Amino acid sequence: MMNEAFKALSDPTRRKILRLLRSGDLTAGEIAGHFSLTKPSISHHLNVLKQARLVLDERRGQQIVYSLNTTVLQDVMGWLLDVIGSGEKKGDKSNE
Amino acid sequence: MMNEAFKALSDPTRRKILRLLRSGDLTAGEIAGHFSLTKPSISHHLNVLKQARLVLDERRGQQIVYSLNTTVLQDVMGWLLDVIGSGEKKGDKSNE
Repeated sequence: MMNEAFKALSDPTRRKILRLLRSGDLTAGEIAGHFSLTKPSISHHLNVLKQARLVLDERRGQQIVYSLNTTVLQDVMGWLLDVIGSGEKKGDKSNE
Repeated sequence: MMNEAFKALSDPTRRKILRLLRSGDLTAGEIAGHFSLTKPSISHHLNVLKQARLVLDERRGQQIVYSLNTTVLQDVMGWLLDVIGSGEKKGDKSNE
């Protein structure tokens, strides 16, 4: 699960797709509009993100709409916080 | 930079090495002691982590000592926080 997530995140196009979805759900066409890549290429990236469970897809009428699935990203962040360790402490201190 | 970091993090052995280094600096031999992998294999993983700037290596006498470099991990976490978005807000609320 973590392996696939990190692998999916290692591509800048896929990271940009996730950032786009932060503002709201988008169709594959809308996503493709933000890139100078072919639709099959965008499709491939969306599929990798879907396999890694970083996005969810849902059919709405004629279209498939993609949304951000933050569950796995939260897991990844939990792991990073655990390794960085002092990062959490720093956060606490800034509120003192 | 981010691409290499995420790629390096996609391997469970490498993630475990980073967790080990959280508690303090270690030599390659000490790291290898935690795995049932060959030393060349551990060397390879350490090299990938070094290329991704997730670890630093320093010669101390006869030995090379590895330490965690949290700079890139902080960048990765910054990106994740930015995408998750509400994660940051949740953190703030828990202190109210």
